[in-house]
Amino acid sequence: MPGDKAGKPHSMAPVVHIIAPDDRPSLRAAVEEGGAELGPLAQADAVVVFRTSPGDLPELPDSVRWVQLPSAGVESWFAAGTIDHDRRWTSAGGVYARPVAEHCLALMMAGDREFGVFAQARSWDEDGRNRTRVLERLTVAIVGAGGIGRALIEMLQPFRVEILAVTRRGREVEGADRSFSAGQLDQVGPLAHHVVVAAPATNGTRHLVGAGELAAMRDDVWITNVARGSLIDTDALVQALRDGTVLGAGLDVTDPEPLPDGHPLWDFDNVIITPHIANPESVEEPLLAERVTENVRRFVAGEDLLAPIDPDAGY
Amino acid sequence: MPGDKAGKPHSMAPVVHIIAPDDRPSLRAAVEEGGAELGPLAQADAVVVFRTSPGDLPELPDSVRWVQLPSAGVESWFAAGTIDHDRRWTSAGGVYARPVAEHCLALMMAGDREFGVFAQARSWDEDGRNRTRVLERLTVAIVGAGGIGRALIEMLQPFRVEILAVTRRGREVEGADRSFSAGQLDQVGPLAHHVVVAAPATNGTRHLVGAGELAAMRDDVWITNVARGSLIDTDALVQALRDGTVLGAGLDVTDPEPLPDGHPLWDFDNVIITPHIANPESVEEPLLAERVTENVRRFVAGEDLLAPIDPDAGY
Repeated sequence: MPGDKAGKPHSMAPVVHIIAPDDRPSLRAAVEEGGAELGPLAQADAVVVFRTSPGDLPELPDSVRWVQLPSAGVESWFAAGTIDHDRRWTSAGGVYARPVAEHCLALMMAGDREFGVFAQARSWDEDGRNRTRVLERLTVAIVGAGGIGRALIEMLQPFRVEILAVTRRGREVEGADRSFSAGQLDQVGPLAHHVVVAAPATNGTRHLVGAGELAAMRDDVWITNVARGSLIDTDALVQALRDGTVLGAGLDVTDPEPLPDGHPLWDFDNVIITPHIANPESVEEPLLAERVTENVRRFVAGEDLLAPIDPDAGY
Repeated sequence: MPGDKAGKPHSMAPVVHIIAPDDRPSLRAAVEEGGAELGPLAQADAVVVFRTSPGDLPELPDSVRWVQLPSAGVESWFAAGTIDHDRRWTSAGGVYARPVAEHCLALMMAGDREFGVFAQARSWDEDGRNRTRVLERLTVAIVGAGGIGRALIEMLQPFRVEILAVTRRGREVEGADRSFSAGQLDQVGPLAHHVVVAAPATNGTRHLVGAGELAAMRDDVWITNVARGSLIDTDALVQALRDGTVLGAGLDVTDPEPLPDGHPLWDFDNVIITPHIANPESVEEPLLAERVTENVRRFVAGEDLLAPIDPDAGY
């Protein structure tokens, strides 16, 4: 049998063990559909993790050559020192991209249409019509062009917006009108009516949007964060909101998270906070199951796995 | 000169008079760009109306052979008896379709994602993740397949929803998966996760969505109205909300309108009310100006005008 990047193909079905707090028939079915057998951890060739935090992960035997993690962002697994070089690790990168992109678009439109104000209103305010805007033909900067960014670009097509893609190195992104590197974020600021944060949380992206970047942005910018709270400097955002130098923000993630009661972000009418729910529970398991089936199939066939984690890059 | 359906072509530029409470340079420019001259009402061949209610419209001289009204819904002009058979009348039908469709989609997504609750929250509620849903692959019934319905169908494409078009006679609608007549609304009810009301307000559509239609709908239906309040029986909707037999509603229009302080609709977390602002002021005049130019051009050329009003049909 020829070796390849992804390891030897199996002549017999490999054993996959599911680590989850309770029985997950759909994940079991997904493993079997991919061509593997379910079995105990001690005999496992691979492990699928679901609703288990890094601290609750049992020690993995040497036989485990691949671990499928359940989330797209895996910084907590790096922080816990879980991710090693001894085996392959895959994230759920891209699995939840479409639900999250949907949530992102919903927050953007809610900003344009001032739903934060109207949802709390108890009186008809016709003047609201002066304050709202259409998304059509605005300029949208998307920071991070992974699965979420790509799904969002597709969902934005009907609105004829100008899309500015911001990636680490400024590579060209399909569907984007212009591309910028992360270091050019201050050049994007004066152009964008929407800034969408959809990049992974790494040491390099912490406070990517800080006081300086916020100062460079238009006064009518709506900032949407569906990635991780740490990418935005919360104190700087609160100050910009107090100063009225941004239109507002839609935040599905915050720093700290959960956002504590009494935090100033709760008090702004022009901030819509959702409690890290861009990926609704109803679609989490079915979407992960699809990925499990595909990655198990690739594992069995000795092919490259989807969403491999680079232990050195941190995502 | 040959006559045609739309009247004789002019050998000299016709005179258009603008009726508005204040000077509107962009509308004046639009008239001239269409090939007409501006002039006083007494000499006018045509009139463009902007921000003027039926009661404030001056008597029109016989020379006026065409009136361009500023709104898509013209039931108030019919109610006032303004629209006659003596000349042609055009509405702004289709002009604001895209901004309104945008607002409609924003309200739909805000319903799926429970923004009505989250915008008012002052505390992190992780359980929210159990209550939200994705729009992708849901079934969306669109009542009315005019400009708004068509624009909405385009904007819904990325979400792979099933679209049920409901029109007066159940004609086939491009982009819809199935078509129903208004009388079949009770057949649509059990299917649709979203019911969008985007039909003109006429005698025939009053309370199109009443107690019976609401009872036929799924318990997780989100109802969005961007047309006119009268299409929904408000009392029946309030009762359905109290009974919990609908997921909620996004209402840009209400009956009565403006919705009075203290009205029960204000008190539901799962109702998002926006004060008839689907068409933001910032785009109203530019979009109308485009239509004015096009209709003036057609008037000058003796061609059919866009969005002609049928005095007998009532829209």
